[in-house]
Amino acid sequence: MFTAIVSSGTLLAALDSVSVLVDECKIRLDEEGATIRAVDPANAGMVNLRLDTSAFESYETDGETIGVNLTRLEDIAGMANADDLIHLELDETTRKLHIQIDGLEYTLALIDPDSIRQEPDLPDLDLPATIGVEGRDIDRAVTAADMVSDHIALGVDADAEYFYVDAEGDTDDVHFELDRDELITLSAGDAHSLFSLDYLKEMNKAIPNDAEVSVELGEEFPVNLHFDIAAGDGSVTFVLAPRIQGN
Amino acid sequence: MFTAIVSSGTLLAALDSVSVLVDECKIRLDEEGATIRAVDPANAGMVNLRLDTSAFESYETDGETIGVNLTRLEDIAGMANADDLIHLELDETTRKLHIQIDGLEYTLALIDPDSIRQEPDLPDLDLPATIGVEGRDIDRAVTAADMVSDHIALGVDADAEYFYVDAEGDTDDVHFELDRDELITLSAGDAHSLFSLDYLKEMNKAIPNDAEVSVELGEEFPVNLHFDIAAGDGSVTFVLAPRIQGN
Amino acid sequence: MFTAIVSSGTLLAALDSVSVLVDECKIRLDEEGATIRAVDPANAGMVNLRLDTSAFESYETDGETIGVNLTRLEDIAGMANADDLIHLELDETTRKLHIQIDGLEYTLALIDPDSIRQEPDLPDLDLPATIGVEGRDIDRAVTAADMVSDHIALGVDADAEYFYVDAEGDTDDVHFELDRDELITLSAGDAHSLFSLDYLKEMNKAIPNDAEVSVELGEEFPVNLHFDIAAGDGSVTFVLAPRIQGN
Repeated sequence: MFTAIVSSGTLLAALDSVSVLVDECKIRLDEEGATIRAVDPANAGMVNLRLDTSAFESYETDGETIGVNLTRLEDIAGMANADDLIHLELDETTRKLHIQIDGLEYTLALIDPDSIRQEPDLPDLDLPATIGVEGRDIDRAVTAADMVSDHIALGVDADAEYFYVDAEGDTDDVHFELDRDELITLSAGDAHSLFSLDYLKEMNKAIPNDAEVSVELGEEFPVNLHFDIAAGDGSVTFVLAPRIQGN
Repeated sequence: MFTAIVSSGTLLAALDSVSVLVDECKIRLDEEGATIRAVDPANAGMVNLRLDTSAFESYETDGETIGVNLTRLEDIAGMANADDLIHLELDETTRKLHIQIDGLEYTLALIDPDSIRQEPDLPDLDLPATIGVEGRDIDRAVTAADMVSDHIALGVDADAEYFYVDAEGDTDDVHFELDRDELITLSAGDAHSLFSLDYLKEMNKAIPNDAEVSVELGEEFPVNLHFDIAAGDGSVTFVLAPRIQGN
Repeated sequence: MFTAIVSSGTLLAALDSVSVLVDECKIRLDEEGATIRAVDPANAGMVNLRLDTSAFESYETDGETIGVNLTRLEDIAGMANADDLIHLELDETTRKLHIQIDGLEYTLALIDPDSIRQEPDLPDLDLPATIGVEGRDIDRAVTAADMVSDHIALGVDADAEYFYVDAEGDTDDVHFELDRDELITLSAGDAHSLFSLDYLKEMNKAIPNDAEVSVELGEEFPVNLHFDIAAGDGSVTFVLAPRIQGN
């Protein structure tokens, strides 16, 4: 059994963070809320989405796992205005999700969860550096780096206490630096890792400009990007594997 | 002889309603105003446009029928701001239309009316159900139906007194229902017909969101969509033939 | 040595006026400011851009000529908000330009000036007619003419004291006329020349709607289009060669 009411803005913010990596996913529904874990086909980028029951106007389930086509569900939610409430109700017999938006009822065929790629276990890394940065700064760094390269280095200089982004192209380079004053928080430890811009560009699309993003970094280790959605009643964690740097 | 002045907003609203079905049309000009009747090449959708003399700032004719390229005429009117006045004057010798917009003069070659597809006779149907609905509700229904199917069923349940829209896809369905309270008017009679979404999508483009649309329906009969333009000094009627439903 | 600070709005307005004609150019930097002269590959359109030192927040050079990829430099400046200040600093050893925008540093490889097409000498023409016209009127004339033809005639009727634009298509024509009252200034002399619309469309993109454009014309002579940028601390002059009219 599953029935819930949620604002279209909250639903879209949640779905967007997953759809940048995969087209289909399992949504686990339990008494604490909804969670989605997914990894992209190349096993490089992972997402862990949590939406607490408090993010919903109403929420009831006795525990369900449903498989959904994310593109389709986003298209449906996208027909609503940002403040519209979306009613969701699972028909357990037909395994279809009834979606109601202000008089409009959409019946969405669910996907067999067993046919969906297995959910990843997100690595529990103890990374030496953690910074807090605004979403808009990540956007600027990624946009600029994309002009010169396919890769981007993220790092922290522990002594000089700043976070930096480097991208090296054939002829042009991009360097972006934020010191303690320009960051929201800085827990410095030496860190430097290289990442694929393709993935960071996709993840960046799901990060609101005004989000406070917690970035955890190490030396040639994955990066963790964590931010709240739904006014703190939900959160998104992206994990991106590093590219091994040549010598 | 024909000479007239009309706001670009009024002219564009009128032309848009015809250009969604045909590229060329005849415009009949007489002492009561301008009228256009047209049917699409497949004979499925028809339009009847009426623009009274009161929709014009000034209007003079002794009766003319001109043939125009609608795309071209819309492009010209589209160069004006919404409040700009457009001056139209027919040169009877050269059969060209002189179009003036704030200092700019465009000379449009007319098309021989005899070379344009014959104007249809709009069927005079006595349909059992009539509802009044906002343009924005038609837009929502058509947009949602388009996500799952190429066809759309429109109907009225006379007993339960509601108007409904149904679209059935291979896996997903859309259902939209408006009861007496959500409609502007409801004159209920049983009605249910299936239509091609391609046509309704085109007609929908010409229906303003805030228009009050009168929808007349029957059992496997054409649908009539009627709404005012030019603040009531003109009107558009679309007629769309039904698709015959399989068993 | 070259180091300067300039608003992104000013830098973009300057670069846009050159990039409509060429992809690469030389920028001459001296104690009076920056100048760019360029001619398109077909030798039909030329631009002369001047940006005084007063257009910069700060400006220092002992005389330099640098070669730049305009598309790239515009993309970089385009990442800034209109009010953002852009810091420019030439590294004379590496021949790279360091561009800083609010924490972001872009290192742009310069192009060897000797590899760039030679700068044109702009002809010093004594043209009989000069009019002052708003950028938005040039935009309207060019947009309308483009609907019917690839060419556009610009002229002045000295006796009747008006400026006109003519475009003749296979079936349709466009005529645009501005008399003394509708022009900012009019120094009338007979003038009539035909130009390629492709070039005027490109030049038009760089002319702000509210610019006062000085247009100098002759009989089958080039047209000069001159307007200020950077609140008068800079200027752009376009020169376009005429098309020879057939008989």
